[in-house]
Amino acid sequence: MCEYESLERTLEKYIPPDELKEVQRILMGNGSRELELPRCAVEAASARNFELRGCAFGAAPEQLRQPRVVRVGLIQNAIVLPTSAPVLHQIDALHGRLADIVEVAAMCGVNIVCFQETWTMPFAFCTREKMPWTEFAESAEEGHTTRFCRELAKKYNMVVVSPILERDEVHAGTLWNTAVVISNSGSVLGKTRKNHIPRVGDFNESTYYMEGNTGHRVFCTQFGRIAVNICYGRHHPLNWFMYSMNGAEIIFNPCATVGELSEPMWPIEARNAAIANHCFTCAINRVGTEYFENEFTSGDGKKAHRDFGHFYGSSYVAAPDGSRSPGLSRTRDGLLVAELDLNLNQQIADRWSFKMTGRYEEYAKELSQVIQEDFRPNAVRE
Amino acid sequence: MCEYESLERTLEKYIPPDELKEVQRILMGNGSRELELPRCAVEAASARNFELRGCAFGAAPEQLRQPRVVRVGLIQNAIVLPTSAPVLHQIDALHGRLADIVEVAAMCGVNIVCFQETWTMPFAFCTREKMPWTEFAESAEEGHTTRFCRELAKKYNMVVVSPILERDEVHAGTLWNTAVVISNSGSVLGKTRKNHIPRVGDFNESTYYMEGNTGHRVFCTQFGRIAVNICYGRHHPLNWFMYSMNGAEIIFNPCATVGELSEPMWPIEARNAAIANHCFTCAINRVGTEYFENEFTSGDGKKAHRDFGHFYGSSYVAAPDGSRSPGLSRTRDGLLVAELDLNLNQQIADRWSFKMTGRYEEYAKELSQVIQEDFRPNAVRE
Repeated sequence: MCEYESLERTLEKYIPPDELKEVQRILMGNGSRELELPRCAVEAASARNFELRGCAFGAAPEQLRQPRVVRVGLIQNAIVLPTSAPVLHQIDALHGRLADIVEVAAMCGVNIVCFQETWTMPFAFCTREKMPWTEFAESAEEGHTTRFCRELAKKYNMVVVSPILERDEVHAGTLWNTAVVISNSGSVLGKTRKNHIPRVGDFNESTYYMEGNTGHRVFCTQFGRIAVNICYGRHHPLNWFMYSMNGAEIIFNPCATVGELSEPMWPIEARNAAIANHCFTCAINRVGTEYFENEFTSGDGKKAHRDFGHFYGSSYVAAPDGSRSPGLSRTRDGLLVAELDLNLNQQIADRWSFKMTGRYEEYAKELSQVIQEDFRPNAVRE
Repeated sequence: MCEYESLERTLEKYIPPDELKEVQRILMGNGSRELELPRCAVEAASARNFELRGCAFGAAPEQLRQPRVVRVGLIQNAIVLPTSAPVLHQIDALHGRLADIVEVAAMCGVNIVCFQETWTMPFAFCTREKMPWTEFAESAEEGHTTRFCRELAKKYNMVVVSPILERDEVHAGTLWNTAVVISNSGSVLGKTRKNHIPRVGDFNESTYYMEGNTGHRVFCTQFGRIAVNICYGRHHPLNWFMYSMNGAEIIFNPCATVGELSEPMWPIEARNAAIANHCFTCAINRVGTEYFENEFTSGDGKKAHRDFGHFYGSSYVAAPDGSRSPGLSRTRDGLLVAELDLNLNQQIADRWSFKMTGRYEEYAKELSQVIQEDFRPNAVRE
């Protein structure tokens, strides 16, 4: 089957310019413009066979604050080697691929780069096999991949968000789905774990790891305050909300999700979070179809098969004013470079005032009732 | 200026069928199909000059439950008389218009109908004038409009959701932005007030009424459990969430909002709420441009003017599986009839499990900290 390339390309191809403008305004908002990227980066991306897109979200000039401009890089990619290759070869091949893309990000002046969920491995949790997939797990602080990312961070003066499968040796070798945040100085700033674990379709992740225990911590980097809401946590508005209340200006959402299941939700959730929380969100999804050696079933009455379905990429950035960037392709590796003026967050917060009008005291009260075993819904009967 | 009619029409007009299918799948999901409506209704809508659209959201057959099929009607409309006409004439003209549309809804078998926000009046809060606009306020229990709606409800065996400007005589004649819910028996089931009041653009509603004090009550009607999240409350994910936790299966969102300000957010928020809360949501927005006798400014440095901008209609229904109906027109009065199998809610909840994986105890704890004056964000520094 030939995968459909992208909504954006179809619209641009068929709709006359005048109407296209209205369509794009309704679908994307007016907030972003195309960002011109250096020729060397464009050429390198082409030579290395990945899509490179740039967009910029501005803010109004202020009198007392300088613009707070930061460039983020969102990277989506397919795995490099077959899933049957030796574990270390698979990891190293992905390190190599990402090094190539990050180098281009550096040419584009990216300050913070975020990779996709569990980026060093195939998304093998569909198989429910423990071996060899748990061998991809690494120490967040001292693992092979963290060392690799620290080198990148230092070399390019870039904050690196590296979502991996973590083995927590300090706590009995437990597995976690974790994002490691590495400062542009090259040191590990900290880690944050996936708060909500799916039980849907082939997302058998609850077989491997539990709900994260790191709360909603936010990382104060030199380029802005960032948080990482991993994958399925995008479906939980309270999750986004709490990162925001802890001060996040940019929330990254590294994912691995497939077409049949979630695609119509994809443009909605991260974007809603940017609107509701007056912040930027960056949704990243892997691309391609991954095949596994042993067949597995999907609890849907269909025959056993060897693939998880198509990871549809479509990574994008959403802004607090309701606008968003175009999405990367559904099929190709890609780097989306987005220039954000973080002043926009406060400007939109002052304009729309969702936080000021949030009535959180009421919700704290109601939520504390909801969780009681004897909770009685507020229902009016005839 | 000629207003742009609708995104859906543009896509259908230009994009070839094969690609249109992919575009619609990504933009709308696969969950709804067109609903055939009786010829008499189609003809009446045409004769009365409003758009009529039908769509249906099905659910899988179950062994122990029958399908729980309900038809909802969403009505969007322009005001009928100029804003300078006598108050009672304006109200009665709107009663007449709505009676015409509701009659068609009855022909289509609608069980629950919802009108737009403060449907008996122009959205005059942009003016900041108290007179004559406060004269549009009525008693929720015994007002002229509630009597009118009770007649409709009884005549057509239809639940009527009637959002009005309320004058609460029992409490010192205070004004509220309120939805009255009338049972299909013709009796007033209750009322529910707008929980979040905007302070943005020309939405000077905080000049007229305060945040609602009726919490997140849900109305158990013969056709399903419903809630009403009025207008600006759609920007607050916690608001939708709490209606859902109180048992709402369908959340109506009657609005009055204009193009320049909110249009790119419009397709996002109610739909995100349907996904996140495993329920149906119905977003309704008025249409047309309303002109006022006295000019007013908008706090945006522009010249004084007499209109609030274009209310862009585009009413739609969103389903828990991430799919949505096409939107009604941006420019015409309209009735959207949606057939919902409410069994879908539980089916999707069991499939996606956002409630089960919601970790509400954690959020109750964190939220109770957030509201403390000495709250210290969970922030990691270098």
